[in-house]
Amino acid sequence: MSNQTDQAFLESALSFFPHLSSAEKNLLLQNTAAVSYKKGSSIHRADYKCLGLLLVKSGSLRVYIMSEDGKEITLYRIYPGELCILSASCVLSSITFDVYIDAVEDSQVLQVSSSVISLLMHDNIYVEAFANRAAAERFSDVMWAMQQILFMSFDRRLAIFLLDESASLGTDRLTLTHEQIAKLMGSAREVVTRMLKYFSQEGYVALSRGSVTLLDKKALRKLADTQP
Amino acid sequence: MSNQTDQAFLESALSFFPHLSSAEKNLLLQNTAAVSYKKGSSIHRADYKCLGLLLVKSGSLRVYIMSEDGKEITLYRIYPGELCILSASCVLSSITFDVYIDAVEDSQVLQVSSSVISLLMHDNIYVEAFANRAAAERFSDVMWAMQQILFMSFDRRLAIFLLDESASLGTDRLTLTHEQIAKLMGSAREVVTRMLKYFSQEGYVALSRGSVTLLDKKALRKLADTQP
Repeated sequence: MSNQTDQAFLESALSFFPHLSSAEKNLLLQNTAAVSYKKGSSIHRADYKCLGLLLVKSGSLRVYIMSEDGKEITLYRIYPGELCILSASCVLSSITFDVYIDAVEDSQVLQVSSSVISLLMHDNIYVEAFANRAAAERFSDVMWAMQQILFMSFDRRLAIFLLDESASLGTDRLTLTHEQIAKLMGSAREVVTRMLKYFSQEGYVALSRGSVTLLDKKALRKLADTQP
Repeated sequence: MSNQTDQAFLESALSFFPHLSSAEKNLLLQNTAAVSYKKGSSIHRADYKCLGLLLVKSGSLRVYIMSEDGKEITLYRIYPGELCILSASCVLSSITFDVYIDAVEDSQVLQVSSSVISLLMHDNIYVEAFANRAAAERFSDVMWAMQQILFMSFDRRLAIFLLDESASLGTDRLTLTHEQIAKLMGSAREVVTRMLKYFSQEGYVALSRGSVTLLDKKALRKLADTQP
């Protein structure tokens, strides 16, 4: 890696960096690449080559699981400044499951090769602690998603989803089809359509082809805060 | 802790032990207690005092989550020789969710106080790496449970559950009520009763008050191996 900005970004994101020897630092920097992914492209899945650690510079990634009949459940998303450890699960003995990772938008990431992560983890306890801490943090994200999916009523989940998307994109008009919302929420299109129709009748949202506009965020927030 | 057997057990289970200073070793041993829990007793929940790390000597524990309306989902179980880190989640900044832990049978555990775990994690990187690795390993267990619950058909799940219980207890006669099976599987009693009745009609199991006897394990195994 030759870019000074990328290098500074990498050093600040990887808290184990000060604990590396000079040789280890060089090895890490020489085996980190800046990579661009187009919106919607598949970055990682079980049958791809093991990628290594990803650090998001811009854009966002979605991490999900898929059933054998194609049903998807979103586990969490990864935003700029955050890192993805499950793309290096091949070198983490504690992680025995596999996930899919897609680019939600055009995204730029720094990729540290899995063989270097493996080597550093083996030789340097700070790298091992870092990698497992990063995994444990995502465990918390996944538990949140799991409780949402298993315990929460669907109207509440949809209200939270719409408010989160609106806040994250900074707009009240979400250009998403019902199919896309269903996929992102790990639900079925019919269920999303039915609930959006209800939200629209209540005046919470306005629906048009390929988009949902939030009209009454106060009402949606009230729904989102309701105890199930 | 004065018991030599307990001390040897603790040392072999905690792989960071050789990396502790003499003072740290003494601190750990002085703040570890042997505790017995009766079958069915509640060991840990969000509103209890933070317990610390548990190491199971005998019996077994069940770790689960519960919805606000009382629905339970079993995440995993902890058997002799295994440890429980989520009972020390208060001192793990990476873990932000809470779980319930019950004793499935009469159980004996070694308990390392949370304040000592916290202190050692802060001062010794090997302890921090160990704790986060233990959490990441349970992440894998939870992902397995989640995929089962979200993706797998109920007949297959029930067949797997019955075979697992039978293998783990070493008997074909399981003394479990439908209510208990439902609780352990994170399902509803009605659903369990319906499927057990079907299994019984097919000759896979025999039902009697408070027990299920496996009659045709070959058929159950075939069901368990079926792709969903």
